[in-house]
Amino acid sequence: MPHLGDATRGRILFGGDYNPEQWPEEIWHEDVRLMRDAGVNSVTLGVFSWSRLEPEPGAREFGWLDTLMDLLHAAGIGVVLATPTSSPPPWMGRLHPETLPRTEDGRVEWWGGRQHFSHSSAAYRRYAAAITEDLAARYGGHPALTMWHINNEYCTFDHGDEAAAAFRRWLRERYRTLDALNTAWGTAFWSQGYDTWDGVLPPRTPHYLKNPTQVLDFRRFTSDMLLECYRAERDIVARHTPHLPVTTNFMPLWIGQDAWRWAEEEDVVSVDLYPDPRDPFGAQYAAMVQDLTRSQARGPWMLMEQAAGPVNWRGVNHPKPRGMNRLWSLQAVARGADAVCYFQWRQSRQGAEKFHSGMVSHAGEEGRTFQEVKQLGADLAKLGPHAADRHITAEVAVLHDWHAWWAGAQDARPSTEVDLPAVLTAWHRALWENNLTADFAHPEHDLSGYRMVLVPQLYALTDAAIDNLLGYVRGGGVLVCGFLTGVADEDDRVRDGGMDARLRELFGIRVLHEWWPLDPGETVETDGFHGTLWSEELEPAADARVETVYRRGELEGMPAVLRRDRAWYLSTLPEPDALRTLLARIAAEAGVRPVLEGLPPGVEAVRRGDLLFLLHHGREPVTVVLAGAHHDLLTGTTVTDEITLGRYGVAVLRP
Amino acid sequence: MPHLGDATRGRILFGGDYNPEQWPEEIWHEDVRLMRDAGVNSVTLGVFSWSRLEPEPGAREFGWLDTLMDLLHAAGIGVVLATPTSSPPPWMGRLHPETLPRTEDGRVEWWGGRQHFSHSSAAYRRYAAAITEDLAARYGGHPALTMWHINNEYCTFDHGDEAAAAFRRWLRERYRTLDALNTAWGTAFWSQGYDTWDGVLPPRTPHYLKNPTQVLDFRRFTSDMLLECYRAERDIVARHTPHLPVTTNFMPLWIGQDAWRWAEEEDVVSVDLYPDPRDPFGAQYAAMVQDLTRSQARGPWMLMEQAAGPVNWRGVNHPKPRGMNRLWSLQAVARGADAVCYFQWRQSRQGAEKFHSGMVSHAGEEGRTFQEVKQLGADLAKLGPHAADRHITAEVAVLHDWHAWWAGAQDARPSTEVDLPAVLTAWHRALWENNLTADFAHPEHDLSGYRMVLVPQLYALTDAAIDNLLGYVRGGGVLVCGFLTGVADEDDRVRDGGMDARLRELFGIRVLHEWWPLDPGETVETDGFHGTLWSEELEPAADARVETVYRRGELEGMPAVLRRDRAWYLSTLPEPDALRTLLARIAAEAGVRPVLEGLPPGVEAVRRGDLLFLLHHGREPVTVVLAGAHHDLLTGTTVTDEITLGRYGVAVLRP
Amino acid sequence: MPHLGDATRGRILFGGDYNPEQWPEEIWHEDVRLMRDAGVNSVTLGVFSWSRLEPEPGAREFGWLDTLMDLLHAAGIGVVLATPTSSPPPWMGRLHPETLPRTEDGRVEWWGGRQHFSHSSAAYRRYAAAITEDLAARYGGHPALTMWHINNEYCTFDHGDEAAAAFRRWLRERYRTLDALNTAWGTAFWSQGYDTWDGVLPPRTPHYLKNPTQVLDFRRFTSDMLLECYRAERDIVARHTPHLPVTTNFMPLWIGQDAWRWAEEEDVVSVDLYPDPRDPFGAQYAAMVQDLTRSQARGPWMLMEQAAGPVNWRGVNHPKPRGMNRLWSLQAVARGADAVCYFQWRQSRQGAEKFHSGMVSHAGEEGRTFQEVKQLGADLAKLGPHAADRHITAEVAVLHDWHAWWAGAQDARPSTEVDLPAVLTAWHRALWENNLTADFAHPEHDLSGYRMVLVPQLYALTDAAIDNLLGYVRGGGVLVCGFLTGVADEDDRVRDGGMDARLRELFGIRVLHEWWPLDPGETVETDGFHGTLWSEELEPAADARVETVYRRGELEGMPAVLRRDRAWYLSTLPEPDALRTLLARIAAEAGVRPVLEGLPPGVEAVRRGDLLFLLHHGREPVTVVLAGAHHDLLTGTTVTDEITLGRYGVAVLRP
Repeated sequence: MPHLGDATRGRILFGGDYNPEQWPEEIWHEDVRLMRDAGVNSVTLGVFSWSRLEPEPGAREFGWLDTLMDLLHAAGIGVVLATPTSSPPPWMGRLHPETLPRTEDGRVEWWGGRQHFSHSSAAYRRYAAAITEDLAARYGGHPALTMWHINNEYCTFDHGDEAAAAFRRWLRERYRTLDALNTAWGTAFWSQGYDTWDGVLPPRTPHYLKNPTQVLDFRRFTSDMLLECYRAERDIVARHTPHLPVTTNFMPLWIGQDAWRWAEEEDVVSVDLYPDPRDPFGAQYAAMVQDLTRSQARGPWMLMEQAAGPVNWRGVNHPKPRGMNRLWSLQAVARGADAVCYFQWRQSRQGAEKFHSGMVSHAGEEGRTFQEVKQLGADLAKLGPHAADRHITAEVAVLHDWHAWWAGAQDARPSTEVDLPAVLTAWHRALWENNLTADFAHPEHDLSGYRMVLVPQLYALTDAAIDNLLGYVRGGGVLVCGFLTGVADEDDRVRDGGMDARLRELFGIRVLHEWWPLDPGETVETDGFHGTLWSEELEPAADARVETVYRRGELEGMPAVLRRDRAWYLSTLPEPDALRTLLARIAAEAGVRPVLEGLPPGVEAVRRGDLLFLLHHGREPVTVVLAGAHHDLLTGTTVTDEITLGRYGVAVLRP
Repeated sequence: MPHLGDATRGRILFGGDYNPEQWPEEIWHEDVRLMRDAGVNSVTLGVFSWSRLEPEPGAREFGWLDTLMDLLHAAGIGVVLATPTSSPPPWMGRLHPETLPRTEDGRVEWWGGRQHFSHSSAAYRRYAAAITEDLAARYGGHPALTMWHINNEYCTFDHGDEAAAAFRRWLRERYRTLDALNTAWGTAFWSQGYDTWDGVLPPRTPHYLKNPTQVLDFRRFTSDMLLECYRAERDIVARHTPHLPVTTNFMPLWIGQDAWRWAEEEDVVSVDLYPDPRDPFGAQYAAMVQDLTRSQARGPWMLMEQAAGPVNWRGVNHPKPRGMNRLWSLQAVARGADAVCYFQWRQSRQGAEKFHSGMVSHAGEEGRTFQEVKQLGADLAKLGPHAADRHITAEVAVLHDWHAWWAGAQDARPSTEVDLPAVLTAWHRALWENNLTADFAHPEHDLSGYRMVLVPQLYALTDAAIDNLLGYVRGGGVLVCGFLTGVADEDDRVRDGGMDARLRELFGIRVLHEWWPLDPGETVETDGFHGTLWSEELEPAADARVETVYRRGELEGMPAVLRRDRAWYLSTLPEPDALRTLLARIAAEAGVRPVLEGLPPGVEAVRRGDLLFLLHHGREPVTVVLAGAHHDLLTGTTVTDEITLGRYGVAVLRP
Repeated sequence: MPHLGDATRGRILFGGDYNPEQWPEEIWHEDVRLMRDAGVNSVTLGVFSWSRLEPEPGAREFGWLDTLMDLLHAAGIGVVLATPTSSPPPWMGRLHPETLPRTEDGRVEWWGGRQHFSHSSAAYRRYAAAITEDLAARYGGHPALTMWHINNEYCTFDHGDEAAAAFRRWLRERYRTLDALNTAWGTAFWSQGYDTWDGVLPPRTPHYLKNPTQVLDFRRFTSDMLLECYRAERDIVARHTPHLPVTTNFMPLWIGQDAWRWAEEEDVVSVDLYPDPRDPFGAQYAAMVQDLTRSQARGPWMLMEQAAGPVNWRGVNHPKPRGMNRLWSLQAVARGADAVCYFQWRQSRQGAEKFHSGMVSHAGEEGRTFQEVKQLGADLAKLGPHAADRHITAEVAVLHDWHAWWAGAQDARPSTEVDLPAVLTAWHRALWENNLTADFAHPEHDLSGYRMVLVPQLYALTDAAIDNLLGYVRGGGVLVCGFLTGVADEDDRVRDGGMDARLRELFGIRVLHEWWPLDPGETVETDGFHGTLWSEELEPAADARVETVYRRGELEGMPAVLRRDRAWYLSTLPEPDALRTLLARIAAEAGVRPVLEGLPPGVEAVRRGDLLFLLHHGREPVTVVLAGAHHDLLTGTTVTDEITLGRYGVAVLRP
């Protein structure tokens, strides 16, 4: 199987999306000059080129692309070639209106933007296959080609009639009989029993609440249909170039794709990552996404898109302060990236994304943005031979599952304040601030290699997942579990007692009387900390050990945190300091140690292969104590006993 | 005429919606065991059973219902049988798309939720009549059957084409001629004159503001059409079982139904009541709804639905603290309920309402929720013989009218901050905190039995209603009236002078120069209190008595509160303490006394028949002074001179 | 060419919209009595009369209008006759559904409101021309007729199919070839290249962001199509009455019409002006609109609509305090209005605007509102002979352009907090508080007559406009420019360097590295003031003079305000006091002096012809020092050396 290493070959890929069709040909030569200047070694072509490649149905215009492939190859720059299928040309909607998606409210999503295709449309798929076939045939043998990039940020739902038919086919395959569907969806309630397959629809806006299992299955279906689109194109290019890796770029923690399942179908896992430069926890959010992506990749991964400066889609779009682009890029390498790329090479002057920065900003070569890009290119060139293809070892795993998210993120639930990504982020932050390196894992993955497993929240769990958790603890593992876990089965059917009985036994919960979700901003007092978001009226089992109890109010004296042996249960979300302290204590008990002890606040430490990355997220200089002498790859100097990191400073050390 | 007493027969009905089709048959037997354990004597079957009873068009599956009727009867549990017509099966929308409602924006309300039927659809009505006929024929003679429950929470608007045709028919009946319609709607403004009936539509979203009388008539029409649906089904069941009472359950203070008119068509008035357990004024809100429902019923009424714990449709859904379910249930009995029921018996494990609590929660028999339900069942059994069918006497009436609400609750009015339910609640709270028992009444009702009548706000009044108020005061009654009353006639035509001249004369208002609505959070100072929400630039008549004047600002020295003899006018909404003090003073002047004097704050006192209910809404014990010895029905003890009520404590005393 | 003076003839027009079709004929006589009592000399008839004039297709009912024209003429009241085409009768939508507009989401805008016509509909235009023709033929010779009023507040967008066809026609005229369109719209990005004209659509809601140039052109198209509608009707009436002026009323600073271009097509520029009486800056907002309208008119203009009291379309609608109606009306005269009119004469009792005040309010003749209207009528009669037709001279111009606004006010830009009207208002307020009289101008206007030109923000500028600014400075003018100016060209294509190079050179900006927009409520410190909304990372040219630098944070030491000679650049929006001080300083340097020095705060001074208007916007008396003796036209007295103005006081002085 081809993999990322086939493209990197000991280097870290550096570059970005390149959309030269926006520019006259003379700019292309200027681009290549600047790319070489900045150490760019890889660009992605063709992401939005469909209407240029196929200006009318069936036409082909490849000449401009031939020129670019040759030009880039001549400059020693590899090409990741994209299938252009994320943005169909206007003629497709005009000639085949059924290719346009419909929202749950029945509104058409017209051309004039991007991603306006129905995954279920036969016409769309036919055109997509044809252009992919022709691209692969023409460029499969081109020496510049290093990788395939299928489509872009798959994300489009469709509730229209062709999608409805496809949904029914998908459901027939899943359930075989209408009886099975009626049972799984609980249609006995609210008189929703289906008597014919024809009556089953996507969850179009009803008068009142939707059927939650219908919504859940529609999410599964959408992820699967988009994956079918991906696989169809992947299979075409793989037939032409079985030796070249294939990827499609994820949006991080995006709810629309079951990324565990998708990652299995990719040779290279890639992600687009856009933390807000103003977010004080932007670096931690990035670390979480990087850990998740590395875990999906089971090794090195590709940062397909980031911004060299501001983006254009927030309310207020802040630029990156001096040094932040380099810091965050090297953080990605520290956490396993072997490719550091951007959207996009040259900032557009027209169109909807002209205020999204590029590696070459509107200010041009003299602009601070490009100057910093150049410095980063030099740094990456130094790191490549030592960092690329190296692995990262974690003793902690954080569990996440899209199906659990889909089941939980619905209307009409105990608290709409509970947002799974925010809960995941809170738990991951506690690890990150402790410099405890963590992988992510699926609840049915083999967990035996980890000393400690965290379940911030898995609202729905299959029986297999529950068995897996039980086996993990039985095997000596330490399990720490947050509230709203194991509530439902895979059909979103609430398990007996409101939480799976095996899990309740595992943690020492006799009766779960009531959930007490908290109002926005409300906290609940315990004898050790304040809890947020949630609390519970629990009756512990006789053999449970109550670690912390609620104080005051209706829950006075009831367990906030309890455990049975190595299985911990948190019935609230402790405030950040408390969660950090608690997880540090449990980790110590589990024999898990941080990457480095005694780091100043804001300094992140990660080991990749034999390298120690120190990343300073603050603006005032700090000193880090080291054990003995280290070689600093970026400066080429040797540091002994301690190192001082300046504003947004990074050191990559080898003992 | 059958009535609630035919079903209660000296007991208080206790039970709830029972949707056994969600469960396998073995659970049914477990249900009956627990029902008997909890003292349940009545359940409602069939509310959402249409697709189970009629799985395909014209089919009938009654076997499962036969079994349940027999099973419940054998256990001594009465059945309120529902027509299942609030949630049509999927096949109906599929075969008859015109049965699906459309919003004012033209969006279809698809199946997959509930209540997705057009009141105007001939197909829907035909199917609804047929299933109702067959249910009545089959179960009319069943010994378990005690009452009929038609549909559920009628609430669906429709702006589609079949509704448009029905709206035109309704308008032709109301107005006879297009000229009359054009006059009533004031179509001379904005060039809206209709030249054919065909041009008249429901108020579908226009470019700018809608015609307010069109909106008003559309609300009238919707209420009437839903009532037609109700009557059609009621007439069918009544033909089969003329001896059994019929009801449909209201949502309290819901804007869609003219509940005064609907109540006249019901044998039993029932309501669904869901105060937020976290709302510090939840109990007062409940008392208001109970007073309104009792007034609609003109006697005992049925609490058809409440929640034993949390609901699922708020942003954050709080459970009921220990004791609150009992307290609020007994409050309903105190205020005239002869039935205390829940949605639903057993909490669902699937579907859109699985996080709405049940009498048996997910925690099951051992859960606190069911344990408290059991205690309540025992309490109600004690109270039944003494409370059921007893009446409540009030010397105060609060006026409310849906048509006035519909006319006032429109776009483009003086202040969108003015919300009639909030104004009603503020006035009722002032009574409740004074322990002044009140009925609600329609402005055209005979008011001569009341010592004091409050009009918190009746924006539109018919001439008959104005005559009624004038006659009431002439006959010696004390009338207290809030702002924005008598502004418009029944066509929402503003009366001369901005407020009806007869009312202005009644209160002593010479000229109403301007309304001065207040900004959100703004207050206005008077020489006695702060006003909220509204103020007015009024010129009093020579013989008016100005009680309170505005201070400072543009209204300096103008009347805030004025009266002529027994007719009071409040041109602002006094802050809660001030309104409570003012109404207490006027009540005293009118000879109205509270149920009990000198009660500790938070203790509610109500007399029903010869019983005195004391309801303590706080968590710290309080002592209530009593005159002499009383028998406490709940404890079976005798209390003398005083009684102490614990957390959420209730005493039901007989002298 | 006819002009406003043809209607005023030495008077100030006073009156308002008169919609007598809402009232029985006896009220008409009462109306005329009150009009004469109040000094009303002009009313606008027919704005919403279409369904009355043409109750069914092709019918004509003119009798009622004949009566009114005669009645008004007999009373000496002139008539501004409106074409009724802003609100088509219900039969038009019924018979010609394609006349109904569609929103970008595809929703129909139904009849039942007003302005529900598609500018592109052939049927609508045919009916509109026919009724206009017949009105002009019938009343062109009527002695009461003084002016034509076409339609009303043109404002309706349409995204439907007939509009799509018209948009394509408009685009073909603009671009001639598809290639040119593809180039202008930058369709190479996101694969939006059009291969046929048929594929081009209005910007209907897409999956993700729209093409910004498509949106810009659609705004241009909409303004042009509405203007076509206006011109078609204007040409008809002008053919009948070449001697009478024609107008249509603008909404002030409304985004839908390029008012510079529209004004060129009007004989009289008129505007509707509704400041919030509660807005502490309402008077300044009004002054800005008046300056803009006067600049569009290049002389006297018409205040077509204002409210004598509250409006009905805000959340909370405040009445005007005593004196404010007079004050604000005289302010309009001070700033060039020769007509002071209202919507509407008599407050409606029915329909969507019944809570919008009238000159005769619901309180009637005795109401404060009418009493104040009467006083104002008397004041205007005194001023007429001295003020009407007199001009105002300004030495400062503020530039504004609708195309720049359209290009800038889009999704996905650096900061959605930046709102052009708010920026304009902030700059104009600084002038107003300095009593510096200003005109508005288009960036391509001849600016040589002004000593100082302000560009609060012109995001997009044509080359001609840039040349104009450069020439202005070269010619000795002082230019003060705010951020986000000159960023794009007329196709919304970002200029090289992120800001036009010629402008950068003009101001002394070497490199514009990054924009640093501020979060809501955030401020940025400089060494002289606090900036709001925006800041910039700028590298000044060697010959630039840095006036103020940023302090602290990432921009420490970089220029906040810089200049090269007479060209100033502000890279942030200074807080109000700072902007006022800065502009006063630059004005002084430019030789511009305020109307009067040393005025108490809240007193506005304007010179019109030889009159000095003093307008006091506060409630406490103030004294204004004057040079020598003046005649006060309103009181008829002579004031010497100083004058005291009471609450909302106005003096109109002649030396």
